[in-house]
Amino acid sequence: MNITIVSTTSRKGSKTLELSVFIQDLFRRKGLDVQILDLQHLPEDFFTSVLYRSPKSDSFQGIQELVTATDKFLFIIPEYNCSFPGVLKSFVDALDFPKSFRGKKGGMIGLSDGTQGATVAMSHFSDILNYLGVTLVPSRPRLINIGQHFYDGTMHQEIYTQHIERTLDELIAL
Amino acid sequence: MNITIVSTTSRKGSKTLELSVFIQDLFRRKGLDVQILDLQHLPEDFFTSVLYRSPKSDSFQGIQELVTATDKFLFIIPEYNCSFPGVLKSFVDALDFPKSFRGKKGGMIGLSDGTQGATVAMSHFSDILNYLGVTLVPSRPRLINIGQHFYDGTMHQEIYTQHIERTLDELIAL
Amino acid sequence: MNITIVSTTSRKGSKTLELSVFIQDLFRRKGLDVQILDLQHLPEDFFTSVLYRSPKSDSFQGIQELVTATDKFLFIIPEYNCSFPGVLKSFVDALDFPKSFRGKKGGMIGLSDGTQGATVAMSHFSDILNYLGVTLVPSRPRLINIGQHFYDGTMHQEIYTQHIERTLDELIAL
Amino acid sequence: MNITIVSTTSRKGSKTLELSVFIQDLFRRKGLDVQILDLQHLPEDFFTSVLYRSPKSDSFQGIQELVTATDKFLFIIPEYNCSFPGVLKSFVDALDFPKSFRGKKGGMIGLSDGTQGATVAMSHFSDILNYLGVTLVPSRPRLINIGQHFYDGTMHQEIYTQHIERTLDELIAL
Repeated sequence: MNITIVSTTSRKGSKTLELSVFIQDLFRRKGLDVQILDLQHLPEDFFTSVLYRSPKSDSFQGIQELVTATDKFLFIIPEYNCSFPGVLKSFVDALDFPKSFRGKKGGMIGLSDGTQGATVAMSHFSDILNYLGVTLVPSRPRLINIGQHFYDGTMHQEIYTQHIERTLDELIAL
Repeated sequence: MNITIVSTTSRKGSKTLELSVFIQDLFRRKGLDVQILDLQHLPEDFFTSVLYRSPKSDSFQGIQELVTATDKFLFIIPEYNCSFPGVLKSFVDALDFPKSFRGKKGGMIGLSDGTQGATVAMSHFSDILNYLGVTLVPSRPRLINIGQHFYDGTMHQEIYTQHIERTLDELIAL
Repeated sequence: MNITIVSTTSRKGSKTLELSVFIQDLFRRKGLDVQILDLQHLPEDFFTSVLYRSPKSDSFQGIQELVTATDKFLFIIPEYNCSFPGVLKSFVDALDFPKSFRGKKGGMIGLSDGTQGATVAMSHFSDILNYLGVTLVPSRPRLINIGQHFYDGTMHQEIYTQHIERTLDELIAL
Repeated sequence: MNITIVSTTSRKGSKTLELSVFIQDLFRRKGLDVQILDLQHLPEDFFTSVLYRSPKSDSFQGIQELVTATDKFLFIIPEYNCSFPGVLKSFVDALDFPKSFRGKKGGMIGLSDGTQGATVAMSHFSDILNYLGVTLVPSRPRLINIGQHFYDGTMHQEIYTQHIERTLDELIAL
């Protein structure tokens, strides 16, 4: 079972990546070694030579292979302007269709500094994943006011950790 | 009244841009000179030095000024993976908040080769525009099977032109 | 200008109705006399003789006339199962189309005991109002943890009153 | 494996119910005996004594028991005003929470006389099912222009039958 955590922003120093590393460790404690796909690492020519370009630059090939080899995805989604980061959708738009996602499994965890917790973002992204043929676990933790509860790589809000754990367990079992 | 048509994909040779030019001409016949903001023209360093970067590269300044100066936006939205193009959201994410959109007016026209006509895409994007403080005209033309009806820069489906005209009229009047 | 506040649940003793009365008073202080349409008062035979029935029972005629005569609607929407109350959609389904809503103006205020504040509910209902031809004000207050902040008919959270006031002002000006 | 098809409108003589019977027969050919829950059969006092009432009238008990005993649901959803029928949401609002749906499986099939095929309706309802803890199959057939393709209880569009079959197979396998 090949699981990939997708840190869905390319913003540097993001809470999203920090949380992805925290979640990778939660998987490790369950005896599972999972990788992080950090959208900061999209190739430098992603915008000019990959996205909506045919043929695509070879620079994207490693990421495509990682996605193709993944069975289950966990998307960590920050709220940007009441939806997901644009770069997450651009990443999806650049991937091979349908082999990248069809028949696979997925989950989502949302975070925000405000009180929405990326709930509309996850609603939007679920439509996309659904269209792509991904079966989703029903739990979608909304980690609101994230800055108050998660810092220095540590979760200081036990209920958030419990919600995340439940999503991991559902994803592993699906 | 400063109106901007946004051609919301960076794909080269897109039907979306072709349709944007057609719609610009419809505005012209109403005596209005409107500009097209073509997302193909986002700067080459958009992904590496503008999006989610602070400070942003100066390369984006012209586009930011055009947006800031716009009163009413008409977004021409193709359907990519059951939503809007990722680059449209990235463009929005890169703009100054809240001055780029708050208190402004907007409209959307959707197109697709299939039969959805970007309806879910427009639902998603309306949540974003709403959050940004844009008042939207209610009509949202869904131009389905676009390739059969619009080619060589000409609309061959009269009802589509009528739907588009209604949206233009609503946007002008709002 | 004929404004109607719609209290969108038929639950007895609802916070939604209590809030609707509070908001009616805010309108009054602005010198506007607005009415409340309380969905508790749908006719007793609504389900068996009105909804999806043709011809409809006469019992619905008074409500239909009130809606037809309204220029601007303010929907007060509680969150039930991550969306709007089913009865709100049934009410909409029973009204004459398109004259009930086309060309009119609207606004939404969401409330919940939890932290979502009916945000997804308002996203869903905006798709419906949009389809019906209603132009919506962009602000959509999310009144979260409502029970802690609004009781005994009084708002104890000043920022909530400010958000509501802004929506009223936008609706009046639209 | 206890499967229930939910015919999600209470409109009499609906295409939705006719399609539900057709789909029940498709299940039968796969050797599965599934039941139809027809929302026409909600009790007469549903609106006045069940919905948002506590305690509920006993008239709803049979339906609640059928739902509680169901493992997998297939919702047949017609498009009413760019969303699902209000009565479907009212039905959900009246059911016990969380035992009615949590941990169960589900699928959706949309139909419309127009070209949307209840796509936005299914997007909305997926948010609700997700919240309730239902794992959904990714395929969501959009049966557009249904009146042209399905009549006299027979499907005259082979591709529609194939799409439906795929959803049944996914639901059985989930």
